[in-house]
Amino acid sequence: MEKANKKINASIVVIGNEILSGRTQDVNVSFLSKWFNDLGIRVSEVRIVEDKEESIVNCVIELKNKYKYVFTTGGIGPTHDDITSKSIAKAFGLKYDFHEEAYDILEKYYKPKEFSEGRKKMAKIPKGAKLIYNPSSGAPGFIVENVYCLPGVPAILKSMVSGLQNKIIGGKKIISETISIQSIESEIAKPLEEFQNQFKNVEIGSYPFFRLGKIGVSVVIRSTEKKQIDECHKQIVSFFKKKKIQIMKTQ
Amino acid sequence: MEKANKKINASIVVIGNEILSGRTQDVNVSFLSKWFNDLGIRVSEVRIVEDKEESIVNCVIELKNKYKYVFTTGGIGPTHDDITSKSIAKAFGLKYDFHEEAYDILEKYYKPKEFSEGRKKMAKIPKGAKLIYNPSSGAPGFIVENVYCLPGVPAILKSMVSGLQNKIIGGKKIISETISIQSIESEIAKPLEEFQNQFKNVEIGSYPFFRLGKIGVSVVIRSTEKKQIDECHKQIVSFFKKKKIQIMKTQ
Repeated sequence: MEKANKKINASIVVIGNEILSGRTQDVNVSFLSKWFNDLGIRVSEVRIVEDKEESIVNCVIELKNKYKYVFTTGGIGPTHDDITSKSIAKAFGLKYDFHEEAYDILEKYYKPKEFSEGRKKMAKIPKGAKLIYNPSSGAPGFIVENVYCLPGVPAILKSMVSGLQNKIIGGKKIISETISIQSIESEIAKPLEEFQNQFKNVEIGSYPFFRLGKIGVSVVIRSTEKKQIDECHKQIVSFFKKKKIQIMKTQ
Repeated sequence: MEKANKKINASIVVIGNEILSGRTQDVNVSFLSKWFNDLGIRVSEVRIVEDKEESIVNCVIELKNKYKYVFTTGGIGPTHDDITSKSIAKAFGLKYDFHEEAYDILEKYYKPKEFSEGRKKMAKIPKGAKLIYNPSSGAPGFIVENVYCLPGVPAILKSMVSGLQNKIIGGKKIISETISIQSIESEIAKPLEEFQNQFKNVEIGSYPFFRLGKIGVSVVIRSTEKKQIDECHKQIVSFFKKKKIQIMKTQ
């Protein structure tokens, strides 16, 4: 197991048949990844799994041992296909029952007549879990050890993560610079590889694009080391200028 | 291992730090999932992994034994961070070398002076792999056993999969019907669960939405069994009508 030398990294588990069927376009991964970036945490893996207890349980057990943080999205609503809470309880061997504080929150949030069975279900979470408060729609998320469970609706998820910032211990902020050029990947493959070999603490990525009828490449450099980013950026730009490769405005 | 009773299912492996960093929004998963749906194949899992040999190798070994089809996207270009071909070769214990047909294709596609080292790299694929032709930009994808490797650029990927249709043995087409209602999930949670218990071969999902200032729920029913879908659809619609729940125009 990699548990012993867990780095400051994270993984995201998207729970939901609607994403796997192509019906819904996931946008939470990209939002959470950027949020983690700002906290100096690297998202190392994402999994999208079915609304199936076995799939969720196995996935969470594997990832919670492998990564410092695991964020799940989806499946904490009131309907029969919302089985995240129950599955997380199983993954940790915890009881799945009404959580006093969550019940109180929901009871206060809804009018007495509106606090239906379905809504009560949202107060059932793994025994001993800490809550993630929900400023948008009442129903809280929850935390068990290093696993953070959030809803799938993007607007609600966004409103909830800001409250988590102080609970997450990040690392050095990951800085990213992009140099977009009017060229093709194969023309710059060799020099980029050489830059990569020279700057071991900088991650250099190369992404072709087609924009307004123009073909280009975005060279993205990422690192937690500001000095190295600056030096690497300077050398790559100066190389492109020397080779008369046109640098474009970055999108 | 689940190898013995492989169902007609698939998994997608998105290879690319640019997706994990949040820089690029993936759109291939949703496209491929719908494409698979039409072929009667269910996408059961998606993983997004780093441009790291170990991550790709481990992921592919696990998924190729678990699912009938594994599609990978990304990492087959000419730059140093394109390591899919090499990693797939390793996952299958195959040599990673120039592929005669791929080399021929690329040699013909480019003018002699333009057939650079970077471009030649795109002809290096696992020994014995079958090619997936690329009508957009020359460089082919490839197939090793049940693993299909495609590029990450959505427009190129799309142009390549249509040629794959005859190579994929699908199942019964998965039919999906959506009923959008002006209600909230917790109000319909219990009856939906009862419908789910009644229709075992139909998968009923419930997805809240906020559209044009209105709150609603999309009830999605999916199955390969047309008769069951029709009956389930009829009963749910009739239930909503009886309860005076307004049915909205489906998006």
